[in-house]
Amino acid sequence: MTDRGELQMDAPQLAAFMREAFQQVADDFVILEVKPNEVTMQMVITEKHLRPGGTVSGPSMFALADVSAYIATLAMIGPKALAVTTSCAMDFMRKPRAGVDLIARAKLLKLGRQLSVSHVLLYSEGQAEPVAQATMTYAIPPEKNG
Amino acid sequence: MTDRGELQMDAPQLAAFMREAFQQVADDFVILEVKPNEVTMQMVITEKHLRPGGTVSGPSMFALADVSAYIATLAMIGPKALAVTTSCAMDFMRKPRAGVDLIARAKLLKLGRQLSVSHVLLYSEGQAEPVAQATMTYAIPPEKNG
Amino acid sequence: MTDRGELQMDAPQLAAFMREAFQQVADDFVILEVKPNEVTMQMVITEKHLRPGGTVSGPSMFALADVSAYIATLAMIGPKALAVTTSCAMDFMRKPRAGVDLIARAKLLKLGRQLSVSHVLLYSEGQAEPVAQATMTYAIPPEKNG
Amino acid sequence: MTDRGELQMDAPQLAAFMREAFQQVADDFVILEVKPNEVTMQMVITEKHLRPGGTVSGPSMFALADVSAYIATLAMIGPKALAVTTSCAMDFMRKPRAGVDLIARAKLLKLGRQLSVSHVLLYSEGQAEPVAQATMTYAIPPEKNG
Repeated sequence: MTDRGELQMDAPQLAAFMREAFQQVADDFVILEVKPNEVTMQMVITEKHLRPGGTVSGPSMFALADVSAYIATLAMIGPKALAVTTSCAMDFMRKPRAGVDLIARAKLLKLGRQLSVSHVLLYSEGQAEPVAQATMTYAIPPEKNG
Repeated sequence: MTDRGELQMDAPQLAAFMREAFQQVADDFVILEVKPNEVTMQMVITEKHLRPGGTVSGPSMFALADVSAYIATLAMIGPKALAVTTSCAMDFMRKPRAGVDLIARAKLLKLGRQLSVSHVLLYSEGQAEPVAQATMTYAIPPEKNG
Repeated sequence: MTDRGELQMDAPQLAAFMREAFQQVADDFVILEVKPNEVTMQMVITEKHLRPGGTVSGPSMFALADVSAYIATLAMIGPKALAVTTSCAMDFMRKPRAGVDLIARAKLLKLGRQLSVSHVLLYSEGQAEPVAQATMTYAIPPEKNG
Repeated sequence: MTDRGELQMDAPQLAAFMREAFQQVADDFVILEVKPNEVTMQMVITEKHLRPGGTVSGPSMFALADVSAYIATLAMIGPKALAVTTSCAMDFMRKPRAGVDLIARAKLLKLGRQLSVSHVLLYSEGQAEPVAQATMTYAIPPEKNG
């Protein structure tokens, strides 16, 4: 289905696709870098992402991990809006720092015909130690003319 | 620390606490029933929870699972806003039905001194088969005068 | 592919299949009960399953959760030795009791064309509170003449 | 409790401790390298670890991930046999290669007072792509004279 070593979409193509498929949240995310099997993304933290005290909420961190693994998958398989998250495991390890954005580094560890599997580390911008880790599995829709 | 068989807070007390601790999202959730080690909650689905096509987003399902496990824990340990999610595993099994709310049934499986562990099933209202399952772990803050 | 409400294999058929597919470990497991979407199994604990102090090891608990979810899946899809575990999340909640067997109750929550998803609770025999919970996902091999 | 940047035990000390604490399985594992917050281990695959067809079983992969995260934790906190696995999430991504050992690379991502969190990648020896990933959480016993 795909040559695993080559990008099928670059950062501007992925950003355009994300904007179309997820227009409600596309403004929250910036694709910083796209390499084969690896994506770095930024989550622009605004009021709606915060818990009392100013820390980023769990659902916001989930959203960032989810979209990062999705973009890492799409970059290698091309535009498929129908890829869906099937499972996720997250460890929340440190409280995100108040007042800074979140950065995600997603690595695609497996790209099969049916599933992609990623590992994502989330950081408060400027910090060396991750605030959370996530493993994400996506189901890839079958080829129509496969 | 707590008698494991007895509720420390009832539904109105939990709702009041949730409203104070999570005012930004408290309107999204309704506590339907509270029993020892078991809570049923409703997520009032609005535009902000949806993906294109009208289905509930992953982060919204995460948010519901998270708050349900939190309320199930608080019900047994009393008001502790500082309890924090430490880990979560979710399986997204079916597409939520468009146009209906989500229901969560959270069961508290373990309440230790340091951690609570829950299992949560999420349903589209009126459907028999769950749309997602989640396992959630919360760290419980140490007693001050323990 | 399968009628989801009906058992495709009963307990003796499943036991025979398990004995053939996993002869090395089949003696460790007894299928106690098989119902649609639900299986109860026993792990016969012997020296090899123990940690110092007499408690059952983590890998042994994993093995029981894994085989229980597998049997729950096979019961509904028929004999397919090629179904493989794709992911698993476990919470170890209590120390298993020394000197007694482990019991697993696996519930099949989703049976799709490509994946099955289960929730498994593990108990020390005779105890009401679970020692561990597991969520297991199996990939189901495609139909040959689909 | 511990200086996070410094090893508290080196490879020979860890091997001796493992041999004492887990004598039943210590022969299965070789500690290849120990660095601050990172451990590389080898699992010596023998008949008992295999499934029919010669592939390494799921419980064996779990055992390797578990012991690797444990050793990565002990290396930083010193000898504490009582540290226990509290949760684990694994993705089984590729079939391990028959006839070769497994290698684990465990990274310690968080070392708190109560919990350690690791990410582990498992490889068939000599292969570039991982066969499995695991996230492991350990509960650290409280200091006696803390």
